[in-house]
Amino acid sequence: MPQGALLFDLPNFPHDTWTTHLRRFLPDLDVRASFDEATAKDIMYCVAWKPQPGMLRKLPNLKIVFSMGAGVDGIMADTTYPRHIPLARVVDDTLAQAMSEYVVFNTLYWHRRMNDFAALQRESKWRQLPAPRAPFVRVGILGFGVLGQAAARALSALNYQLLGWSATPKNVDGVRTFHGSGQLHAFLGETDILVCLLPLTPDTRGILNEKTFAALPNGACVINAARGGHLVEGDLIAAIDRGHLRGASLDVFNTEPLPATSPLWSHPKIVITSHSAAFTDPASFMRQVATTIQRIDQGLPPENLVDFTRGY
Amino acid sequence: MPQGALLFDLPNFPHDTWTTHLRRFLPDLDVRASFDEATAKDIMYCVAWKPQPGMLRKLPNLKIVFSMGAGVDGIMADTTYPRHIPLARVVDDTLAQAMSEYVVFNTLYWHRRMNDFAALQRESKWRQLPAPRAPFVRVGILGFGVLGQAAARALSALNYQLLGWSATPKNVDGVRTFHGSGQLHAFLGETDILVCLLPLTPDTRGILNEKTFAALPNGACVINAARGGHLVEGDLIAAIDRGHLRGASLDVFNTEPLPATSPLWSHPKIVITSHSAAFTDPASFMRQVATTIQRIDQGLPPENLVDFTRGY
Repeated sequence: MPQGALLFDLPNFPHDTWTTHLRRFLPDLDVRASFDEATAKDIMYCVAWKPQPGMLRKLPNLKIVFSMGAGVDGIMADTTYPRHIPLARVVDDTLAQAMSEYVVFNTLYWHRRMNDFAALQRESKWRQLPAPRAPFVRVGILGFGVLGQAAARALSALNYQLLGWSATPKNVDGVRTFHGSGQLHAFLGETDILVCLLPLTPDTRGILNEKTFAALPNGACVINAARGGHLVEGDLIAAIDRGHLRGASLDVFNTEPLPATSPLWSHPKIVITSHSAAFTDPASFMRQVATTIQRIDQGLPPENLVDFTRGY
Repeated sequence: MPQGALLFDLPNFPHDTWTTHLRRFLPDLDVRASFDEATAKDIMYCVAWKPQPGMLRKLPNLKIVFSMGAGVDGIMADTTYPRHIPLARVVDDTLAQAMSEYVVFNTLYWHRRMNDFAALQRESKWRQLPAPRAPFVRVGILGFGVLGQAAARALSALNYQLLGWSATPKNVDGVRTFHGSGQLHAFLGETDILVCLLPLTPDTRGILNEKTFAALPNGACVINAARGGHLVEGDLIAAIDRGHLRGASLDVFNTEPLPATSPLWSHPKIVITSHSAAFTDPASFMRQVATTIQRIDQGLPPENLVDFTRGY
């Protein structure tokens, strides 16, 4: 039985449901629903998503922080994060599967001209629209880590031509890989459908901008399933409206919920889902948290830790 | 060099383009663009889709008819078809691939609640919509031949639970197969997303009707990529409007082009594409036609022949 308490710092999540999953593995763990200065010293483990800046510093016996999502930018936004404390993120087959579904759906949506069919349907117009064969459609995945590679496997089952770009070199069968800022332009120049699955770091913030869109071939489409901070929304609208891009699918936004006044909502060539591409599965995540706590308790190193230098 | 001429009886198709593909394989074949009573005796081969009833009977030296599509109902509609003449249909990887894309896209569309997201977007409303994991979604493929099995392979890469129904028994790894009218009800009762890829025959005409929809679980969805004649359109609208079905994707219709007055166009839970799920690839089809003509010329039996008793 591990010593110490776990702070479940997810104020908008169903605390009881998630704790029930955790108790299947660690029935006696002391779980606290909110931060309390008086008992801060009891907390050895913390599950977080967007913690109050400075809160984590006030936990003197903290051994590890668990990020509820694959992206840790909400936790890294706390500039006072105590960097001697390891940060583990969820690595979850369920999450990767759901993200792959979102990517496959939206790739087919733009490849098979479903936005054009929807426009025809609104006007009750019959028109047969051909599309190129999948092996002639180049899907470029920007951010080629766990989620990007899972999406590539799902897309390769449909015979798309695949490209992957990442900060560091990656080698994956059947995928032409590019890395570093030096190869970004070459990658973009051969990408018909751009899928962003990057972590949000100071290096990647605003990467989906006017310059990036201009480097894509005419008629390209953009799918952003990473973070709203990657996208310069006005640049996207401008690139679509001047006819350079065919359209975009967006799951994430600079401000969430996306305000009702945003011009993105009514744009006829933008498909919006409400940050729903992939949810962390509570049962799977809590199993990972429990496993890691047991490893720490046994003196073993925790897994899936964030590298603070690169920020993911 | 095969003897005799080929009649290319596809009045609305680009004759020159298709003939160019054929000439890559049979450069000297005599190709005729239309039926002419005076020279009918020259014709040994005929490429057709919806021939004028009675025309094929007037070709005394006809050796084989090639159907331009995988479905031969347009040719079988000619009740005077001379049944001693073999009928070959296109069996084409490109066609199967495009059909699989259509099926995967529309399965994801209904599974991942994209119709609900589209309705939310029209109202500028932010709402996160969860969806079950793919292994808990049962996709039932009605018509489990070449196209149905290709679609099953594509869906299985996304981990859907798969069921297949066909007139005759089929055995496919990872798919629960059903056959014959006796097992249709059991198949429908376990199908969350019904995909119709049946051939259109007297037995299957109108199979997507009130009774079939009632046998599906509440909240099921229907995808018809086969023939308009399979669907009783009024029964579908009624089943959606009473809330039993969540919605439908339709590529084919009883009357094509679908008249602008059809209530299907404006139905908020029906997605329409204009018979565009999968086109026969001219290059691939013409290669098959050429190969079969060469086989016949060498005294070998032609492949992919239609069984007139079952009608496909």
